[in-house]
Amino acid sequence: MQNLHTDNRKFMQCPSFKDIMFESDQTKGVDPPSFSKPIAGDIIKLPSFDDVLTTRDYMQLVEARHSLREYSGKPMTQAQLAFMLWSAQGVKSYRGNVATFRTVPSGGARHPFETYIAVQAIEGLAPGLYRYLPLENVGEKAVTIERLGSIEDYTSKITAMLAGQAWAAKAPVILFYSCIPYRAEWRYDSAAHRVVLIDLGHLGQNVMLSAVALGLGSCCMAAFDQQLCDDTLGFDGLDEYTVYAISVGEGNREGNKHA
Amino acid sequence: MQNLHTDNRKFMQCPSFKDIMFESDQTKGVDPPSFSKPIAGDIIKLPSFDDVLTTRDYMQLVEARHSLREYSGKPMTQAQLAFMLWSAQGVKSYRGNVATFRTVPSGGARHPFETYIAVQAIEGLAPGLYRYLPLENVGEKAVTIERLGSIEDYTSKITAMLAGQAWAAKAPVILFYSCIPYRAEWRYDSAAHRVVLIDLGHLGQNVMLSAVALGLGSCCMAAFDQQLCDDTLGFDGLDEYTVYAISVGEGNREGNKHA
Repeated sequence: MQNLHTDNRKFMQCPSFKDIMFESDQTKGVDPPSFSKPIAGDIIKLPSFDDVLTTRDYMQLVEARHSLREYSGKPMTQAQLAFMLWSAQGVKSYRGNVATFRTVPSGGARHPFETYIAVQAIEGLAPGLYRYLPLENVGEKAVTIERLGSIEDYTSKITAMLAGQAWAAKAPVILFYSCIPYRAEWRYDSAAHRVVLIDLGHLGQNVMLSAVALGLGSCCMAAFDQQLCDDTLGFDGLDEYTVYAISVGEGNREGNKHA
Repeated sequence: MQNLHTDNRKFMQCPSFKDIMFESDQTKGVDPPSFSKPIAGDIIKLPSFDDVLTTRDYMQLVEARHSLREYSGKPMTQAQLAFMLWSAQGVKSYRGNVATFRTVPSGGARHPFETYIAVQAIEGLAPGLYRYLPLENVGEKAVTIERLGSIEDYTSKITAMLAGQAWAAKAPVILFYSCIPYRAEWRYDSAAHRVVLIDLGHLGQNVMLSAVALGLGSCCMAAFDQQLCDDTLGFDGLDEYTVYAISVGEGNREGNKHA
């Protein structure tokens, strides 16, 4: 084995939670941070997604999922977007100000993510940047978003944000997930970060399966321009920063053929 | 915001892939590592899982999934195990000796994981430790495993491996996922590790959805005794180490009620 990145490998391993929990802000009695950032824009309630799936069979979805990098350009519907957002971060219930229980699990039920939506083409929705507000519909199969503003020079900006992956800028929607690390650090201190990355994969997998269930496809991108994403989406890069980008849309004939 | 773990937060962020790729072993022309560890034990072909699902509706699965920590103790069937293993790591196709395409995505199609199965109670399968062999059934909905040996003092050993989480030792099966980091480092060098953790969440989410589809439940555990897990499963802790543990089984009445 070559290239031993010992520190990075160590980061991936489990520290002693017993020692770390003893020092976390939670154990010191510090109040937990809010479940969500405050609402800053105009609120939009998306339509019901009860009847939006074209494939509901789970085994078929697992078989059919593949990374889709060629998009037809067809706009998505608001109901399709709503289902996708809910399946990845929908809140089913909560306990006090400490835990939310969602459509995906998160270590300590901390869910330290926010969902930003770069909209290029969704029927009846102005292009621009939006944020999902999962706390607005606790226990409901319903989705509310807020509009944050426009995205100038969409194609070139998105391509640059995604480190030159120009194919992704053709997708009607890009989901950007941010992390607010203190939400997890409050409970797990320095053990939080490896768990948060695993949690990110949980929600990413639901986005990908949901895309197939909608008759669409998706591609997860771990490679992006950190600074440009953070600047464009309005993060300081320390208390909130970009951690994942997922393109979603209908495939063209070539895109649908790939394994 | 308190407790600024700046280095850990930085680890979660995207480095410049362009610079790092330039230095990876792949770009230097080094041969890639094998897709899988060599087979060391007796091979067992598990039965077909075509008809094993009790809930196939994806929207129902997303709604119903929750962390299950109370198990009835009922044994699982071999077909249930087979579906679970396949849905998380099944290989659909491969390209040369460079990439495998599986039921979940992995950065650069590297899939740097091995699946170990601690069996307490599966009908017709001797208790003990097994490993999934996904390369034995490329493109098939079929699963082969190998038997690695017995696990002495199962309940106390598993409880200690899982850092005292005694409830998990009541599950009929624990899946332990290991990471072989060089498989990803070969392509991404020091940028590999954050991506590998995200990929781990992808497969974890499929395990959890699959458990619900089988009429069972599961719980992902990011907390475990690293040294004891590595020692028991036969890893050196550097070129291969434990990264995730997931308990799977039928819930008792209390377990099924939780959110």
